[in-house]
Amino acid sequence: MIYLKVEIKVGLKEGIPDPEGVNIKKSLKLLGFENVENVEVKKSYVMEISGKDEKKIREDIDMMCKKLLINPVIHDYKVDMIK
Amino acid sequence: MIYLKVEIKVGLKEGIPDPEGVNIKKSLKLLGFENVENVEVKKSYVMEISGKDEKKIREDIDMMCKKLLINPVIHDYKVDMIK
Repeated sequence: MIYLKVEIKVGLKEGIPDPEGVNIKKSLKLLGFENVENVEVKKSYVMEISGKDEKKIREDIDMMCKKLLINPVIHDYKVDMIK
Repeated sequence: MIYLKVEIKVGLKEGIPDPEGVNIKKSLKLLGFENVENVEVKKSYVMEISGKDEKKIREDIDMMCKKLLINPVIHDYKVDMIK
């Protein structure tokens, strides 16, 4: 049994519009930050997860993403092991 | 003038309740993922930013966070340079 701290980073797929990012960029420009481009907004889930081995944990994470955390039509996700 | 891609990662300060994380943990357990603990939700802003040097860019980012991106009462943030 191993314990891992993982970060699941969810973002929009290439080509899917990101209105929140566009509006944050606009607001930053209005505040005087003219030097900002291409703002993207992502969401991360950091969690501790236990399992038989890293492969099993990775499978569980893929299942969690499909069942709850992401919308596969518009989202991509990436998993980082923190420790 | 340099260009940097940065990620500003915003999370809740230590001790601030994270109801979204708590509910995601509950939902994952209901879906059968009993092996998950301590779910935290974070938000990231990935952006391209230009400036005189890294120090100036870092100052701009701190100012952006204070003025728009975070609520200093409840949020902490961390800046990673992606390239």
